[in-house]
Amino acid sequence: MSTSTFTVNGMTCGHCVSSVKEEVAEVAGVTNVEVDLATGLLTVNSEGPLDRAKIAAAVEEAGYEMADRS
Amino acid sequence: MSTSTFTVNGMTCGHCVSSVKEEVAEVAGVTNVEVDLATGLLTVNSEGPLDRAKIAAAVEEAGYEMADRS
Repeated sequence: MSTSTFTVNGMTCGHCVSSVKEEVAEVAGVTNVEVDLATGLLTVNSEGPLDRAKIAAAVEEAGYEMADRS
Repeated sequence: MSTSTFTVNGMTCGHCVSSVKEEVAEVAGVTNVEVDLATGLLTVNSEGPLDRAKIAAAVEEAGYEMADRS
């Protein structure tokens, strides 16, 4: 079990949060997804190590952008 | 054929617009719904005169608030 956190830009409301959660939940190995709208924090639980590119692709599919690693 | 305009508060993104359009489109007699996100302008075409309270109720059902007549 692994937990990864990312930052998502551009979410403005609960609908945005739902869209991101839906898309990220479909990534293989993901077991749980939480999103904090105020901070853009995306927390992903997964069975094993996550491929950051796949999460970024899911976020983009939802219509948002993952912040660069800082 | 009648056209009515209202102002909706609280919409922040395209998902919000979709929610409002969906709910208002379900009001009896409504034939077309347009929403402008930037201004909150809700334009409703209907077969006959519209009951403002029914449109307000649909907007609330979507999770938003209709502005008072000014």
